[in-house]
Amino acid sequence: MTAMQAVPFTAVSFEDGFWAPRQAAVRDATIPFLHRQYEQAGIFAALDVHAPADPLPIPYEVTPIGTKPATPVMYWDSDIGKWIEAAAYTLATQRDARLEATIDDIVARIEAAQEPDSYFNSYFQRRAPEAKWSNLRDWHELYCAGHLIEGAVAYAAATGKRRLLDAMCRYADLIAHTFGRGEGQRRGYCGHEEIELALVKLARFTGEPRYMDLAHSFIDERGRQPHYFDTEARARGSDPAAWYHRIYEYNQSHVPVREQDKVVGHAVRAMYLYSAMADLAAEDADQGLRDACVRLWRDLTQKRLYVTGGLGPSWTNEGFTRDYDLPNETAYAETCAAVGLVFWAHRMLLLTGESSYADVMERALYNGAVSGISREGDRFFYENRLASRGGTERWTWHRCPCCPANIARLVASLGQYVASVGPDGLSLHLYGQGRLTATVGTAEVVLRQTTRFPWDGDVEIAVDPPRPMHFALRLRVPDWAGSAGITVNGEVVPAALERGYVRIAREWTPGDRVSLSLAMPVRRLSARPELAFDLGRVALQRGPFIYCVEEADAGGDVERLALDLSAPIGARFEPDLLGGIGTLSVPARTVSDRGWGEQLYRNTAPELNPMTVRAIPYPLWAHRGAGSMAVWLRCTNH
Amino acid sequence: MTAMQAVPFTAVSFEDGFWAPRQAAVRDATIPFLHRQYEQAGIFAALDVHAPADPLPIPYEVTPIGTKPATPVMYWDSDIGKWIEAAAYTLATQRDARLEATIDDIVARIEAAQEPDSYFNSYFQRRAPEAKWSNLRDWHELYCAGHLIEGAVAYAAATGKRRLLDAMCRYADLIAHTFGRGEGQRRGYCGHEEIELALVKLARFTGEPRYMDLAHSFIDERGRQPHYFDTEARARGSDPAAWYHRIYEYNQSHVPVREQDKVVGHAVRAMYLYSAMADLAAEDADQGLRDACVRLWRDLTQKRLYVTGGLGPSWTNEGFTRDYDLPNETAYAETCAAVGLVFWAHRMLLLTGESSYADVMERALYNGAVSGISREGDRFFYENRLASRGGTERWTWHRCPCCPANIARLVASLGQYVASVGPDGLSLHLYGQGRLTATVGTAEVVLRQTTRFPWDGDVEIAVDPPRPMHFALRLRVPDWAGSAGITVNGEVVPAALERGYVRIAREWTPGDRVSLSLAMPVRRLSARPELAFDLGRVALQRGPFIYCVEEADAGGDVERLALDLSAPIGARFEPDLLGGIGTLSVPARTVSDRGWGEQLYRNTAPELNPMTVRAIPYPLWAHRGAGSMAVWLRCTNH
Repeated sequence: MTAMQAVPFTAVSFEDGFWAPRQAAVRDATIPFLHRQYEQAGIFAALDVHAPADPLPIPYEVTPIGTKPATPVMYWDSDIGKWIEAAAYTLATQRDARLEATIDDIVARIEAAQEPDSYFNSYFQRRAPEAKWSNLRDWHELYCAGHLIEGAVAYAAATGKRRLLDAMCRYADLIAHTFGRGEGQRRGYCGHEEIELALVKLARFTGEPRYMDLAHSFIDERGRQPHYFDTEARARGSDPAAWYHRIYEYNQSHVPVREQDKVVGHAVRAMYLYSAMADLAAEDADQGLRDACVRLWRDLTQKRLYVTGGLGPSWTNEGFTRDYDLPNETAYAETCAAVGLVFWAHRMLLLTGESSYADVMERALYNGAVSGISREGDRFFYENRLASRGGTERWTWHRCPCCPANIARLVASLGQYVASVGPDGLSLHLYGQGRLTATVGTAEVVLRQTTRFPWDGDVEIAVDPPRPMHFALRLRVPDWAGSAGITVNGEVVPAALERGYVRIAREWTPGDRVSLSLAMPVRRLSARPELAFDLGRVALQRGPFIYCVEEADAGGDVERLALDLSAPIGARFEPDLLGGIGTLSVPARTVSDRGWGEQLYRNTAPELNPMTVRAIPYPLWAHRGAGSMAVWLRCTNH
Repeated sequence: MTAMQAVPFTAVSFEDGFWAPRQAAVRDATIPFLHRQYEQAGIFAALDVHAPADPLPIPYEVTPIGTKPATPVMYWDSDIGKWIEAAAYTLATQRDARLEATIDDIVARIEAAQEPDSYFNSYFQRRAPEAKWSNLRDWHELYCAGHLIEGAVAYAAATGKRRLLDAMCRYADLIAHTFGRGEGQRRGYCGHEEIELALVKLARFTGEPRYMDLAHSFIDERGRQPHYFDTEARARGSDPAAWYHRIYEYNQSHVPVREQDKVVGHAVRAMYLYSAMADLAAEDADQGLRDACVRLWRDLTQKRLYVTGGLGPSWTNEGFTRDYDLPNETAYAETCAAVGLVFWAHRMLLLTGESSYADVMERALYNGAVSGISREGDRFFYENRLASRGGTERWTWHRCPCCPANIARLVASLGQYVASVGPDGLSLHLYGQGRLTATVGTAEVVLRQTTRFPWDGDVEIAVDPPRPMHFALRLRVPDWAGSAGITVNGEVVPAALERGYVRIAREWTPGDRVSLSLAMPVRRLSARPELAFDLGRVALQRGPFIYCVEEADAGGDVERLALDLSAPIGARFEPDLLGGIGTLSVPARTVSDRGWGEQLYRNTAPELNPMTVRAIPYPLWAHRGAGSMAVWLRCTNH
């Protein structure tokens, strides 16, 4: 049992604020846009597994979209799964016959392609049937299955249509037959974690414990000796030592998961693994898994996390490197990794009820994750760097198009992160104008938030139980709030924190009004000195947003600015900027060109001109040209 | 005619100071060390062109030395040429029968390999005889010839032994027969410039104008249309557009050299080209070439030169990128490029008599060039970065071992850069304890410098003409000297500058004593604001040295330091450090670890601790471990 249960995402409707337009953009722009892009790249056409396959080198070549048919890659099925999942979340709140017909057609093609034994993988069936299950380490077979399972569950939940779910249950049964710890089964697991958390979802949705057992097997076999990936490599006549990635840290299989204490390797894989570990820790009250999760969480948040909630600094392994190695300009910080961190943080929050997990969840959500998608929903970042010397723009297509559907499914299903219910009561984790219905005991309690959050910290909450009833309402006080004031029906409530929440246990009556006032000071964050790239710099935070300065607001290269930390920083709302956003007015000095002539170096210091520079929320950068940008800003005082 | 003639390098003997031990290290360590390394890599063995050649892909693969025989590469002949040249310079002042026997053996092998028509290239003869002269753009054939010619001239000058010189004259005659602007000749030139300046040397040494003519042809054909490299590519059935480097800026053949005004492409190639252009401009009083040289010089020194005299920031093309693009940590700044800049600057100095050229020559020599070799003479940098986060050390071998012999030949022949003689008189460009003999008119004038330079700016010069004689002594006042005071036999001489020199025209008598006092303040250099990597930072200079701070002297990561620019910086000589060097004592503040606990980020500024940090001359970095280092130091005041 988890400590808390998330509300279903359908129980929350956002109004205005930051997320409602983003959800609309995902529904109205991202979903159809990605469908067109996949179509053009040949991703749907690749489902026709009986079409003759051109001879192809295995894999990793995608030609730019539109020039010629793209080379199929072995993880395309996963993109279909994620796209169906994202689309399903939008359908849950707003049915759309045409979109459903499109999905149903895809489902029919998957069904038609599925083999008699229920195997389904469009790449292997068409291109390398002899290679099935022969290289779990590299070939993403179970990963693809996982995303299709997640898509199938979401689509069934949203529409009640079970054809894809049934097909994926049959496939999962084949996988459960093939892999496991029983006689004659393979003790393998996927090099790219994903199926583990998908199986948990499938088990919860269908009520079938065998899927949970399979998730357990994958988690517990991981990293054991003799190492499955060694054995498997030798079986196909390959030298395990000749592997490109060299070390099993890359896919978190270097030691059994319960012994792991460093976040290592490919960041998305790590987040999906830890998410499944947290799921299983909650499911079974498994203290060993829970302890491992807590150790890994501490390692990440104390040594390896960008201030934006981005993670995985290196392009080389798409992942982690050394403690405190967090370069800004070359930050990889994949969108999918920040999305994965939201998944993991949410599960840790539900497991523990601790606000510190929600703090990180919120930070990643509002910054390093949502920066991966444009306001309009049709441009994407794969890498979310924290500084740019210019020339960085979101793209419409990527050879590995994993991120767009990932951020889309997160945004579309965001409601579930807002609140949860548990023995402790009804916990409110995220704030924002809108309506929430939560099942407390057997009653449906409606909470309506009226607020300008995230631009302002005042939140009015109308609590509407169907009848007077006693329960605890837990209101999160984020780490960025200097303080919180709370009244209920106008009377001050003591705001003592319990695991980061103010807990108000009382008899709630229809019409009760809670007023929460979160201080929203501008924070001047310093990084610990081991973070060499941030020395002498500050990052600005207000509310959940990390702010950045863009060239468009700096009159030139942002590196020319040095902040004056002794001067106050103003905050205001600019209704005409980027759809209406909060900005900061930051006193700074900027290096002048004056007096330079043709010298490259000189023995006198440059002139500095005072100016007030605008800072904007980090995820909104690169919407006004491709100029320079910095999160960590030079400052004169340290 | 050049404006001035350099003194022969043999006319200068350094005593103590900075260069005498470096010259000794080149002679006693570098020359034998490189011989062993080349031997082990198979570079000498490759001269046996009649040995069967293993089938090899063309080229670019060298296995680490010692593991298995290295793959021959097409530029190994050039390494032999440069090594012979460097060895020859040491032999000129100190004959060594054993070293000469080694060289004579190599010469005999070259002679034996030379073809009946006098062609010599060990790679093509053995491995690809059918490919001779078919790809001048990429295959370094004339480049190799150039270095062998330079080696041959130096060896003949040093020892009087002419066998290599004669062999190379025969080869040069074949090249002159093959290439040129006459009937039936190829109008080609080398993709890697080098032979042009070598032919000037050969022409001057032998008195044969045909070699000068060939240099002219190579220079003037370069970049003309139809483009030779296009024609040549098509002739061998290759698409010119399929070239890896894509643009002819890479090898400075994008337009004819007289039209060039940007330093572009591969930095070493550029420096060798411009050196030859300056040679020919002087040789023929060719104003068009001179103007081009001056334009290119301004472009380099006003937009594309590191403060260390390093150049060519990018690894990708081993060369230039955009104006003001001078990253510190990723600086390529190849040793060979800085050596090449010394060559070019020296030629511009002789051409013009302007101290500004000597300023850059001195800066590159003392910093970006000599940093490429360790004090002991047996470790080398290829890339001379201006900042390191640690882990950077000089190596004993490189797959492209071009730099060691290049810096060795520069150091071994350094005397020629000290002084020159021309219509204006005897010019002294570089200071340092030692003795110089210069031919003024027909008389041998001896100058003896007594000084602790480069650690101190006081230079006593004993001027000893054989008899009382009238001539002008020009003493350079470097750009880094705030001021200069001069006395002759104790009487103050007005120190008016003429092209950066104080010119003292008088009757000099044996026993005359000139006392030159160059102020040597610590300069706090700022970079112009377009150099974004240097914003908010200063570089320290004293005398000819740019200083850096190393982790060994900073108590931790050098990025933790912020200099206090308002406090005075002390300078002193430390006899026990790195053989005795001048250091700076720099007041700074360093970011403290205190109070951090386990947080990664916090809302309060870090504590700063005052400390005095030692700075050392840049070329001496990486002699005390592989810690962090910075030339451009953060500072609190801008």
